[in-house]
Amino acid sequence: MHASADRASNQPQRKGGLTPRADDFPRWYQEVVAEAGLADNGPVRGTMVIRPWGYGIWELLQRALDDRIKAAGAENAYFPLFIPESFLQLEAEHVEGFAPELAVVTHAGGKQLEEPVVVRPTSETVINSFFAKWIQGYRDLPLLINQWANVVRWELRPRILLRTTEFLWQEGHTAHATEDEARAYALRIFQDVYVDTMEQVCAVPVVTGHKTARERFAGAIRTWSCEGMMGDGKALQMGTSHELGQNFARAFSIEFANDKGTLDYVWQTSWGVSTRLLGALVMAHGDDFGLRLPPALAPTEVVVLAVRDEPDVRTAADALMAELAAAGRRVRLDDRFHLGFGRRSVDWERKGVPLRVEVGPRDLAGGQVTMVVRHLRTKAPVPLAGVVAEVDRVLSTVAGDLADEARAFRAARTSDVATVEEAVEVGRSGFARLPFPALGPDGEDRLAGESLSVRCLQRADGSVARTDTDEADLVAVIGRSY
Amino acid sequence: MHASADRASNQPQRKGGLTPRADDFPRWYQEVVAEAGLADNGPVRGTMVIRPWGYGIWELLQRALDDRIKAAGAENAYFPLFIPESFLQLEAEHVEGFAPELAVVTHAGGKQLEEPVVVRPTSETVINSFFAKWIQGYRDLPLLINQWANVVRWELRPRILLRTTEFLWQEGHTAHATEDEARAYALRIFQDVYVDTMEQVCAVPVVTGHKTARERFAGAIRTWSCEGMMGDGKALQMGTSHELGQNFARAFSIEFANDKGTLDYVWQTSWGVSTRLLGALVMAHGDDFGLRLPPALAPTEVVVLAVRDEPDVRTAADALMAELAAAGRRVRLDDRFHLGFGRRSVDWERKGVPLRVEVGPRDLAGGQVTMVVRHLRTKAPVPLAGVVAEVDRVLSTVAGDLADEARAFRAARTSDVATVEEAVEVGRSGFARLPFPALGPDGEDRLAGESLSVRCLQRADGSVARTDTDEADLVAVIGRSY
Repeated sequence: MHASADRASNQPQRKGGLTPRADDFPRWYQEVVAEAGLADNGPVRGTMVIRPWGYGIWELLQRALDDRIKAAGAENAYFPLFIPESFLQLEAEHVEGFAPELAVVTHAGGKQLEEPVVVRPTSETVINSFFAKWIQGYRDLPLLINQWANVVRWELRPRILLRTTEFLWQEGHTAHATEDEARAYALRIFQDVYVDTMEQVCAVPVVTGHKTARERFAGAIRTWSCEGMMGDGKALQMGTSHELGQNFARAFSIEFANDKGTLDYVWQTSWGVSTRLLGALVMAHGDDFGLRLPPALAPTEVVVLAVRDEPDVRTAADALMAELAAAGRRVRLDDRFHLGFGRRSVDWERKGVPLRVEVGPRDLAGGQVTMVVRHLRTKAPVPLAGVVAEVDRVLSTVAGDLADEARAFRAARTSDVATVEEAVEVGRSGFARLPFPALGPDGEDRLAGESLSVRCLQRADGSVARTDTDEADLVAVIGRSY
Repeated sequence: MHASADRASNQPQRKGGLTPRADDFPRWYQEVVAEAGLADNGPVRGTMVIRPWGYGIWELLQRALDDRIKAAGAENAYFPLFIPESFLQLEAEHVEGFAPELAVVTHAGGKQLEEPVVVRPTSETVINSFFAKWIQGYRDLPLLINQWANVVRWELRPRILLRTTEFLWQEGHTAHATEDEARAYALRIFQDVYVDTMEQVCAVPVVTGHKTARERFAGAIRTWSCEGMMGDGKALQMGTSHELGQNFARAFSIEFANDKGTLDYVWQTSWGVSTRLLGALVMAHGDDFGLRLPPALAPTEVVVLAVRDEPDVRTAADALMAELAAAGRRVRLDDRFHLGFGRRSVDWERKGVPLRVEVGPRDLAGGQVTMVVRHLRTKAPVPLAGVVAEVDRVLSTVAGDLADEARAFRAARTSDVATVEEAVEVGRSGFARLPFPALGPDGEDRLAGESLSVRCLQRADGSVARTDTDEADLVAVIGRSY
């Protein structure tokens, strides 16, 4: 891969040394993930290494999510990786959903285990076994817990960052005294944490709604989902929030004495987003030259690129670094003079750093530097004295531009349709919006035959449907999913 | 447990409802871990649940460590949980050290695996397999990587937080061009990250030095260790930094072209600290009434305890909350009026919250509140207008007081000795400092027979020995370890 970058200028059909996105989207995706230094495949099939640049993005995303989760009142905790196999059996739908994907530890400490343990695919079972201990009365409710953890689901068709055998995520688990309260909390997390993070932090507009019974989380009574449209028109499920009703409460005997003193099962929610969001950023914002990052998720917002190893250049670059750091920017100096200027520029372009400030002797003689805006690929001179202000100004526009572009792309590939046949046609390259009654009883089977699915149900105006919405007023958003 | 708390006042021998520390230290430890809400045992033997209060402390400790690790130039990344069994075989000492503790996945996705995978006990092998890909020339060095992760070591005698089958930690892995550089980096992490965090953040004074060959990390050529003295006089290894020499580089063929163009193996380090530090905080600072936290690690620094459900009390408590939050304090309101005042006070005392501000009608009538300092167990009235300043003043003294107390305790239980016999005597309840030559060739065996060990070697003045220090000038610090 690295060698091809040096030949980029001789290969106009491979802009920036990458396969053009329009030619082969999956291949382009793999190349960007590798060349931007986001992730590598691990030695065990389906696992991955999240490299420093990818992990740096994840850390910023974690912080954004964690701040919002805490603002919604949940506290972080940590539950064991290993779950007794018998726990999984307790909720019938849940075990049916996850059994085919489990990794099982049969030997440990040099001996065969009496009861095999599974590596958590999700933590409903083990967490609810503790909720049963911790919850006695209504004053223990609501119990709002979040966990940052790795989980394992053995994938038949792994795809780096999007569908990996092991991934990192947060999973929230809550218990409430009433169904209304649980539903309101599942929706609060959905809107205030997930949709807000996707749109305001990731700059990825999302379609929102609830899943059909077929697509629901194993064990849930309702799953709220936000779905982004990727650069190939396919849908990526970016985050889900579930109402679990009393399913797990019955399975794990999570009872509480209500304020009248009678025993009742708690009402629950669970919700999660994962490192697949790193893949979403690539596929929603990437272009033929690599990744494009919204500044809020850029481990480096501005690179100061010293063009030549000369004292004046070094002095000016150091001064700019100090100024930008003092202004609170995440900034990095590139003084890798042993590499060519072009190669260094391509590196930062691929990584999606929003801004480059090139400091070279010719510009300096004129009291200026060159600013390169990654998402627009524009270059312009900026007077030295005005760099910090211009950096502020440009960075404040990036997320909005990326979101607008993604929204326009999605609008161009979304159509209202009247029949399943039309939905199949539109869904091949985008989203079809079909009135729910037109889906019919065999509609989802027919879609599945065409590798399509209902991504979510929503109201005709695109808003999330409350449970009392007449089903006749719902619209099914149909697309091909990752 | 909860029931006993309510009877505390009738049981003077069980202060605060806990077993007195001096009566049964291990039992007292278990009770504090449970009653402070730090952790619970998990359903699979040896695993644990880190509860919100414990995890909140861990998050603050993580931040403190992570800031220092990043300041030392390392970047975070994430490597897979699953490691092919064959990887472990590559470094002979390493596999010998870890083989008895491995958990092995033999089945996944409903099938038996062709090659079993082990759940990482530490990540040297998998990380170094990537270093071999990423490192080509001297310009790729140093490579400084850190990972926050869970690891699994099947424990025969698990003890909550201290020795658990699964624990959370950070593990750093670095590669350098020269032995000197690797050694300097291992020591930099040791001093600037670990010793600084233990002493300045955890307020636990540590004895520092390097391990004997017998006690070294499996695969290392030198292990630097910091050891704290717990409240029973035993030693807890709180953090280790290893020089790996070229052992793993040879095993994984991590070669680089040096600046003369010839191939050489890299020189490496690895280093880690874990959630056992939560146990260290309990055992180093806890008293008969529970945990005592230095403010830097207290998820809540100040509790505002509203004594009675009256409008004036609520108004004053809310105003204080707002003032303290505005001053940047982590503050929490306790208005659980359905619980008795005593029970609520005991709760916060057990959790080790450094300060309580009690807001009651009688105090308010006099324009004041009552401030309770946890680590001293003192109560004093403070005028309402002076609360924020007094909170600042008191909090600024807590860590120093705790460290002084721990240092005095350690000094009282540390003696210079001249023979192994004397070391055995002193080591039963503290640290013995024995000139290294007096240890003799069978000294470590004799200590092991008494359940003692050399915790570290250091210079006579207590400082860390450089590798060129004459062994005759070294002192062995001997104690009983966790």
